[in-house]
Amino acid sequence: METVLTIDVGTSSLRIIIWDLKGKKMFTSQKEYSMEFNNLFVEQSSETWKQALIDCLKGTKQFIDESKPNILAISVTSQRASVIPVDNNCKPLSKAIMWQDKRSLKQCKEIEASLGIEKIYRKTGLRIDPYFSLPKILWLKENSVDVFSATSKVIGVQDYIIYQLTGEFVTDWTQASRTMLLNIEKFEWDEEILDTFAIKRNLLCDLVPPGSIVGSITDEISEISGIKKGTPVVIAGGDQQCAAIALNTFSVGNAEVNTGTGSFIIVHAEQPVFDDKIRTLCSASAIPGKWVSEAGMFTTGSIYRWFKEQFYEQFGKDAYDVLDREVEKAPIGSNGVVILPHFEGSAAPYWNPFAKGLIFNLTLGTKRWEIARAILEGITVELKSNLGIIEENLGGYITSVSIAGGMTKLDSFNQMQADAFNKRVVKYDNVEASALGAAISATVAIKYYSSYEEAFKNMSPVVEKVYEPVQENAIKYQKLMERKNLLYKALDEYKLYNLFSEPL
Amino acid sequence: METVLTIDVGTSSLRIIIWDLKGKKMFTSQKEYSMEFNNLFVEQSSETWKQALIDCLKGTKQFIDESKPNILAISVTSQRASVIPVDNNCKPLSKAIMWQDKRSLKQCKEIEASLGIEKIYRKTGLRIDPYFSLPKILWLKENSVDVFSATSKVIGVQDYIIYQLTGEFVTDWTQASRTMLLNIEKFEWDEEILDTFAIKRNLLCDLVPPGSIVGSITDEISEISGIKKGTPVVIAGGDQQCAAIALNTFSVGNAEVNTGTGSFIIVHAEQPVFDDKIRTLCSASAIPGKWVSEAGMFTTGSIYRWFKEQFYEQFGKDAYDVLDREVEKAPIGSNGVVILPHFEGSAAPYWNPFAKGLIFNLTLGTKRWEIARAILEGITVELKSNLGIIEENLGGYITSVSIAGGMTKLDSFNQMQADAFNKRVVKYDNVEASALGAAISATVAIKYYSSYEEAFKNMSPVVEKVYEPVQENAIKYQKLMERKNLLYKALDEYKLYNLFSEPL
Repeated sequence: METVLTIDVGTSSLRIIIWDLKGKKMFTSQKEYSMEFNNLFVEQSSETWKQALIDCLKGTKQFIDESKPNILAISVTSQRASVIPVDNNCKPLSKAIMWQDKRSLKQCKEIEASLGIEKIYRKTGLRIDPYFSLPKILWLKENSVDVFSATSKVIGVQDYIIYQLTGEFVTDWTQASRTMLLNIEKFEWDEEILDTFAIKRNLLCDLVPPGSIVGSITDEISEISGIKKGTPVVIAGGDQQCAAIALNTFSVGNAEVNTGTGSFIIVHAEQPVFDDKIRTLCSASAIPGKWVSEAGMFTTGSIYRWFKEQFYEQFGKDAYDVLDREVEKAPIGSNGVVILPHFEGSAAPYWNPFAKGLIFNLTLGTKRWEIARAILEGITVELKSNLGIIEENLGGYITSVSIAGGMTKLDSFNQMQADAFNKRVVKYDNVEASALGAAISATVAIKYYSSYEEAFKNMSPVVEKVYEPVQENAIKYQKLMERKNLLYKALDEYKLYNLFSEPL
Repeated sequence: METVLTIDVGTSSLRIIIWDLKGKKMFTSQKEYSMEFNNLFVEQSSETWKQALIDCLKGTKQFIDESKPNILAISVTSQRASVIPVDNNCKPLSKAIMWQDKRSLKQCKEIEASLGIEKIYRKTGLRIDPYFSLPKILWLKENSVDVFSATSKVIGVQDYIIYQLTGEFVTDWTQASRTMLLNIEKFEWDEEILDTFAIKRNLLCDLVPPGSIVGSITDEISEISGIKKGTPVVIAGGDQQCAAIALNTFSVGNAEVNTGTGSFIIVHAEQPVFDDKIRTLCSASAIPGKWVSEAGMFTTGSIYRWFKEQFYEQFGKDAYDVLDREVEKAPIGSNGVVILPHFEGSAAPYWNPFAKGLIFNLTLGTKRWEIARAILEGITVELKSNLGIIEENLGGYITSVSIAGGMTKLDSFNQMQADAFNKRVVKYDNVEASALGAAISATVAIKYYSSYEEAFKNMSPVVEKVYEPVQENAIKYQKLMERKNLLYKALDEYKLYNLFSEPL
């Protein structure tokens, strides 16, 4: 049987999956790991990824030896924007600075002062934010001089895994489009930005289109895994972009909304897409030569989890079940209760690092499940805001939304999205969208399928459920979104976020 | 032994207490009852008070027969502003409209349109609000024509009990000063208001100063209770005013802050006190010929109870204990969490019937006990705002605050008040301040003591604890109050309270 093997390096685990070429999972091996949180710092030892890779490959060997799947290619996808300084032999010189790390707020100010928000956005498609690679690299340069002077390359997580597999320093456009160093129109490292911050070009990996074959596995990897020598390695690209192609976002008409810890909205674009108010991001698509328009929210599912931990923990392992059931008791509009979901600052649409969470319109009659539902509604109407912005910028009408992520196991949340977006919402039977996207990418790279669309048609997961919008609910969510926007505006214009960020 | 017997008709129970003339409780009899809530309507059958009176008197008879306390007087105090239409024989013609009832919002608009907020305030010391008697009487007149045409008198709860004891229709200045019909300068029914709303003077009880002997008990009451015939009955006045004299508020320098379900701040005044922005109320004091300046908040302890019911109920009968312990885990400032305590509209200082509760500045790290403490701090800084307004209007400096009410069993709340107010806070060992005030009133009425001050000196309860303010905390609470004011202002000026009061 012909198969491809995908490696997906997520934020909390590494997964190896072997897929047949109809999109069926044949085998899975997974290793979990964790980050270190310390105030603004979020770090991880890069060796944990190498070790997880080896452990999962070893876990795969028995299946390969026994079932002899004919692995045509290995395809890699990963989390984005984390930064690892390495030497000539790809040995990490410090812990990785993770994508959530906020130490580089000062460097963001420096970037803003020298090139400006608008110019950076038009060149790279990105907001200036500690989330991305450049401010992290500048932090290293300014604060970790010894490490930086010994650094041969500054690479990302996908790049690190590609090196372990092939011995090559290479990155793809999708990962590069989260560095704030890639010219998003040309898919080339931007000379002006490199010059401005005195970053030598050879500090960065060579650029290739996503879905490129970048080499073949080393003998060492072959021995560990049982995968035959010379198997090609495909660089599939960023996890969100890979998820997008597994969720049918091949045209403006179909958006992806992925809600786990945070939420990402991704829409396909045939050219770079910018927003006048710099609220959405533009990145390279996992389909080479295409783009995606992106709106991310930092805290969404994580707020639901926070509420569970603070107020339902007494139900032990049933806590989520009780919460999920109770949330259904509250009607649309949560009997007036409203939340603003900016528990760790706001990304799109406001990009306010000082924004905080708010629960409003409480009475003595308010029940805890009304607050729970208000969390879901608060997330949903902000997603609706962001979808609207993307739609406007793309100049096209989104007719259908593919939803994914851990929160979509909540049926009420899915219907809420259909109603709020006033669009058809499709849920696929698929909890591994990024890996499936990487598998699709590999089948195109080895020319098994002639295009991403053809690969999707053959490998796409089963549609689990379609949610149709209810018109009278759509009107209510429209009002709720307008109220949410006004509530944010009142707090923002009175500078309350800044004021309340200061200690007493 | 010489004693006085007090009858305190509260919102949730009627209590009879026999006191010796040193302020010691000799005997207590109590009967609980409940109201009926139905949307804006809050009602109670008047017979429940009569029945509670008889039950408690019967409960007292055995003690009187056995211990033969020499009862020199009976003194009555009660809740304020509830309204009962009765016939010639004091037979209630409908259920009582309770002080919390809000059905008369329309009548409030009519009063505002005909005489205006300012004029009503200057004449009666009151805001136009459904809380008070006049709009309730107008509601009866407009909506319950048959009842109103059969009505001989419209009376309050204290008046009803006084009639049961003596057969007299009489009310005192303190109760009358919650009707919106009393001229607060002259302590007379205001002719212009009566004329404007076509209310006949004989619809109201005769007026007497608080602390007057209004008659003696009927033979029937004597037989039921064992109290000797001819025992004089004293009309002590409104429960909050009575509590004030039991809590040492004989001068501007000493305020009372009473926090149960809601909170009342009361300060003594030698003349009527008005506020330019009409935020505080002016009422008759229980000391005849004096006044009090009042600032009330509708929901304070009730928010703490709401939080317990929604989020600590799993601890069963220990829920309050767990909450009380947990609240101590949060530091001053609640790690940034802030609440606005307007869960059922705001009374002083904003008087906004549309205001609602708000919890702000939440992060994923917020713990439930930080929200719990933020509730206490939100209440406390609003009390601080109100105290400041009263102080400004009185032109005097409040040096000491006597605290009372159910919430003062929380030591952390008491220290919080001392710190926020930046004043010495005194807690008396006394959970029956209104009744003790009524007892003090009786000893003066029968000339056992020559003045209220002398009576207080002899009968005052033990000081349980004195809380001294901590300067560095006072600075923090000052900032917190300013933030709270700005937060309210932002929501109010953006008309968010009104917007969010409308259904979706």
